Amino acid sequence: VNVLVTGGMGVNGSAVVRRLLRDGHRPIVFDRHSDPSLIPAAMRADVVMYEGDVTNLEGLEQLLRSERIEVIAHLAALVGPNAEKDPYSAVCINVLGTANLLEAARRAEVRRVVLSSTKAVWGPITGQYAHPSFRPVEESHPIGILPDLKIYCSTKIACEAVGQRYAEAYGIEFAALRFSAIFTVGRGKGKGPAGIHSRILEEAMAGVPVRVAAGGDQADDLIYGDDLAQAMIKACVAPRLNHCLYNIGTGRLLTLRQFGAAVSKILPGADVEVGPGLDYIGRPVYCLMDISRARTDLGFEPEYSIETAVRDYAGLFSELYPC
Amino acid sequence: VNVLVTGGMGVNGSAVVRRLLRDGHRPIVFDRHSDPSLIPAAMRADVVMYEGDVTNLEGLEQLLRSERIEVIAHLAALVGPNAEKDPYSAVCINVLGTANLLEAARRAEVRRVVLSSTKAVWGPITGQYAHPSFRPVEESHPIGILPDLKIYCSTKIACEAVGQRYAEAYGIEFAALRFSAIFTVGRGKGKGPAGIHSRILEEAMAGVPVRVAAGGDQADDLIYGDDLAQAMIKACVAPRLNHCLYNIGTGRLLTLRQFGAAVSKILPGADVEVGPGLDYIGRPVYCLMDISRARTDLGFEPEYSIETAVRDYAGLFSELYPC
Repeated sequence: VNVLVTGGMGVNGSAVVRRLLRDGHRPIVFDRHSDPSLIPAAMRADVVMYEGDVTNLEGLEQLLRSERIEVIAHLAALVGPNAEKDPYSAVCINVLGTANLLEAARRAEVRRVVLSSTKAVWGPITGQYAHPSFRPVEESHPIGILPDLKIYCSTKIACEAVGQRYAEAYGIEFAALRFSAIFTVGRGKGKGPAGIHSRILEEAMAGVPVRVAAGGDQADDLIYGDDLAQAMIKACVAPRLNHCLYNIGTGRLLTLRQFGAAVSKILPGADVEVGPGLDYIGRPVYCLMDISRARTDLGFEPEYSIETAVRDYAGLFSELYPC
Repeated sequence: VNVLVTGGMGVNGSAVVRRLLRDGHRPIVFDRHSDPSLIPAAMRADVVMYEGDVTNLEGLEQLLRSERIEVIAHLAALVGPNAEKDPYSAVCINVLGTANLLEAARRAEVRRVVLSSTKAVWGPITGQYAHPSFRPVEESHPIGILPDLKIYCSTKIACEAVGQRYAEAYGIEFAALRFSAIFTVGRGKGKGPAGIHSRILEEAMAGVPVRVAAGGDQADDLIYGDDLAQAMIKACVAPRLNHCLYNIGTGRLLTLRQFGAAVSKILPGADVEVGPGLDYIGRPVYCLMDISRARTDLGFEPEYSIETAVRDYAGLFSELYPC
């Protein structure tokens, strides 16, 4: 299958590209920059790279036609603090960009578009869905309401809806994958509180004693990048999509303390201490995902335990950033 | 106050413009077309008209500066079937257009932007909020989820969120007014099932016997155009906005049969019969709005009963379309 990965040089997109390459596919990457720092050097020759902007409809259409793209894994987006401090660009890149991609896909007769979305569309997770009861959150969970929505999740809500509407109006196959908390290479430095797992591991790898003052009792559903990629690729190639929304997580809870213990176990000599308490991010974003729909429809099943994830992350990180 | 009314030649925007003119203001209108057919001829000379497109950021900024705009009533949008059959344009005009307007407002130091929004953001209204119990719907009501959202309401959800984020990030004052079902001149022919009230009245005025087969028992919260305009103007001039969302309806229920009876009472010789049953639109959209927030914060209070609304509509319609 000819798969276009938008945002394929980014944190999540590169995980998809790495897995596509490992599986013997020839991913075509579309990104604003061609900095391949999240792709191992040995793999780079096999990546077809297009530099471009999703706000350019004509450019997208031309690329889809010239590369005979059949499926698009759409991960290009302005995320995190960059989106919050520049809402105008967030709307242009995320919402208009997704509409452009869908419109270009319609014109070029691309069969399917799979959108990278997020649990953040639910806004704050509270009550029975939060600590300590963690009732699993299904795809039908209400989405968040103002004034509690960040610009990033607002744009993702719009993207999901535009995609669903394109599917309905034009017969393009569409699904949005709502990822739970993500643990993957590239989410470390400068990526805000949600990158805490990356920072713990990377500091431990650097031989630094890691002291996290609080938050060790907070559980969350943490998916490893390569499992995220598995889900994205399965959604790209599944014979058919019965739904337009899929939760993608592990369906399991992991506390920050358990994460620290896994790092200590995998890295000989690591010195990690995580203090007690909840809410290491500072907002009620933690949840347990019900992933049964993705299991049934996409054949998705997380392949990594937290220990194998930490081991794989450490190996990839060393490969990307040899000291 | 220098008020810019985007979409001011449209169905809802023209109601705002008429009321601004009646109140002695000098509305500045921005619309894609300068067809003034919803503005009475005697008023047209007092409207400052700019033809333009909200997808043009620079044009907007220039206009805001040259006219020293202080407040924007933003009603320009692609709505109804036009939005559903062209989701790409709906995203460009509604979402990007609103982001452009906010960005231009930020650059030109406009104080406040008031967005025209809709109860449709809630998706289907069911359970205790629907017939027959009609529990009043507050602003905190969950918004709709896929796959039940139309492209129009999806774009409005995004617009609300972008506006709220602009307010937070840049200090622009922002509120979205979520209107209930609307009864106003211009919503008749070709405007789909939600225009049923207009069609009943206009056909009765034309001397045609009106036979609505079913739906007479369905109640809804129906706001008259001039009350919508009252709310919009109050939101534009209120000393301060304590919230970013306001429900704007009547806080009262009216059945389609009661509407028909009002038409019969006001128009001598009208022949209107409305059959029994529910759901004249064909989707569960009916609700009773809790408008206490708008009452408290904006001093909004509906001025029209259904009979005075029908009388005013008939007068305006005759003025606009003399036979």
